[in-house]
Parts: sequence; C-alpha cells; structure tokens
Amino acid sequence: MLSVGQVKQAQEKTAALFAEFGIVLTAEERVNIEVADFGLGELHLQGLELITYVNNERYCVKELVLFPGQTCPEHKHPPVASDPGKMETFRCRAGEVYLYVEGDPTPDTKSQVPTGSEAYYTVFHEIHLRPGEQYTIAPNTLHWFQAGDKGAIVSEFSSTSRDEYDVFTDPRINRITEVKGE
Amino acid sequence: MLSVGQVKQAQEKTAALFAEFGIVLTAEERVNIEVADFGLGELHLQGLELITYVNNERYCVKELVLFPGQTCPEHKHPPVASDPGKMETFRCRAGEVYLYVEGDPTPDTKSQVPTGSEAYYTVFHEIHLRPGEQYTIAPNTLHWFQAGDKGAIVSEFSSTSRDEYDVFTDPRINRITEVKGE
Repeated sequence: MLSVGQVKQAQEKTAALFAEFGIVLTAEERVNIEVADFGLGELHLQGLELITYVNNERYCVKELVLFPGQTCPEHKHPPVASDPGKMETFRCRAGEVYLYVEGDPTPDTKSQVPTGSEAYYTVFHEIHLRPGEQYTIAPNTLHWFQAGDKGAIVSEFSSTSRDEYDVFTDPRINRITEVKGE
Repeated sequence: MLSVGQVKQAQEKTAALFAEFGIVLTAEERVNIEVADFGLGELHLQGLELITYVNNERYCVKELVLFPGQTCPEHKHPPVASDPGKMETFRCRAGEVYLYVEGDPTPDTKSQVPTGSEAYYTVFHEIHLRPGEQYTIAPNTLHWFQAGDKGAIVSEFSSTSRDEYDVFTDPRINRITEVKGE
C-alpha cells in the first residue's frame, strides 16, 4: 500500500520526466498520473507510472514511465468473453527498456530480476528497445519489462484495456493500487 | 502528382519537425515518411505527412505532421463490412491544430478554407487543440483539420485504418499519392 505522499512524489517525478522529453500533459492529466505498486510496497523496484490517454471499446493508448531500473512484473492479458485478450505494441520514446516475452531464453540477459521475487519471473526472451524502436506482444502471452539505468518512456498502443483481468505470475500482486490516507 | 524531389523535400522537412519536438524515428521510418497530396498537386495548401507506427486488425497509431497552415481535406471513414468505420482520437503533441467536425457551425472560425476548394468544405464545428489536448471523432463523421501558423504534430490513435475506403467530399481527391519519376 502506498501513502498519499509516496503517490504525490512519484507523480511529480513522472511529470518531470515527461517534461524533460517534451511530452506535454494537460494540468488535469498531471495530477491524475497513475502510480502502480502492484500491492508489493516496493515501488522503485517493482512498479509503473502511467497516463491513459484513451481507452474505449476499440482501442487504448497509454504513456508509461519506468524509473531507472524499475520493473513491471510478469503478467499476461487473457481472453475475456469475445475478446481474444489485449494485444499491445510498445514503442520506446526515451531511455531504454528491456522487454521479456515467451520464447527461447536469451543468454546473459541485461536485466536483474527483482530480489526476493525470483520465483515469479519465468520468461526470458529479451527484446531491447531504444528510442524509436517498438515491439508487438501477442494476446495471452507472458511478459515483463525493466527500464535501463536512465529510466524509460514507452507508448503503449493496444486493443481495449481491462487491467482487472490481467493475470500476474506473482500471487501476491494486486493490480489495483491501494492508497492509505495521511 | 508529386515528383520524387518534392516527396524527398517534404520528408526532410517532416523529419526535421519530428526531431525538433523530440519524437525519435528509426532510420527506416525516416526514409519511409508518407507524403500525401491527395492528388491535388498543392501539397503545402492541402496535404499531410505521416508515419504509421502500427496498423493491425485491432488498432492503428499514426504520427501526423501538418506544415504551417496545411489542411487535411474533409472526409469520413464509412462502415466497411462488419467494421462500423474507423474511430479516431487526435492528440496534439506540438503546435496547434484546428479540427472541424459535424455539428453547430462555430462563428468566426480560425482557419481559412483552401482557396479554390470552398465547395468541398461543409462542416464547421471547430475544436481547437493545443499540445496535450485531444478529441475523439466518431466513425462515419465528416471532418477536416488545419495546422496553426507554426505547423502541428498530432498523434492519431484509432481502430484499424483502411485509407482506401475513406470518402472525401472533394471528388477530385485520390487518397493514394502518385509519384512521378525524375
């Protein structure tokens, strides 16, 4: 669980990163930056900051921020009713991101699995994305990603997002961040 | 019809605008910037420059560039088979854009309809987008847009794109740009 102060601090850090790389937000978006700690209480190790620009019944676009070395934990987007599962294209805008998907494990991967969570990272086919590079992840495919040492901004283009159905490998994870009052 | 030289010049100008606003392209994307004159042969008055990041059976994302005062002519995206028509969200990234859609005409609109094409502009409900602002256009709705005097970069998030089915108000228009050899 995050405190209001921790959320505010992460929002300010995220807004500063967007500003540094010329990504303009409205004032309303800036105060509504989503800070996800996945219920693990170690935001800078495992977490994600994001703005959802649009999410309708046909498509979804988010702008993701990862702090230096921050990891978004392993998960997949399963089929939901007639939807075959969320398909996502990650486009690196700034910094560097290491994406891991199902497939042949890459020898000598660049990322370090978050200490204490080794059991919950199971796919190691590495895709290295620098600014301007992108990769599309098929629906219902396990994946996780980690920023390089300067952090990263990643545009996520996708089909409709239904975060509440995401399946995480780590059973301790709760996708919906809880914030405790100050 | 555009000459190879005109296309190259427009691509270079577009790449320079992307670079100025911190939008990074790969080398391959830079040489494949699409330059659309809609068959009208007056690119700087009516035209559009773009990169398609992704276009699959579920979603599409393009990065659009308009030169100062350049207009994308009036058109709509009709239903195609089981698809109710392309739905689009325009997010202004840099510069300013004036978007016109069906609805109550705005008095004293900011844009000037391209000279000689007045008959082919019929909707005048104005939406002014500055950086960070966005608007979603319903499927099968007439719309056109014009950049302010510094040009504009606009991210287009949408359902699947099928440009060849677009319906333009101006019967002289051909969406697929023809390029003549030098």
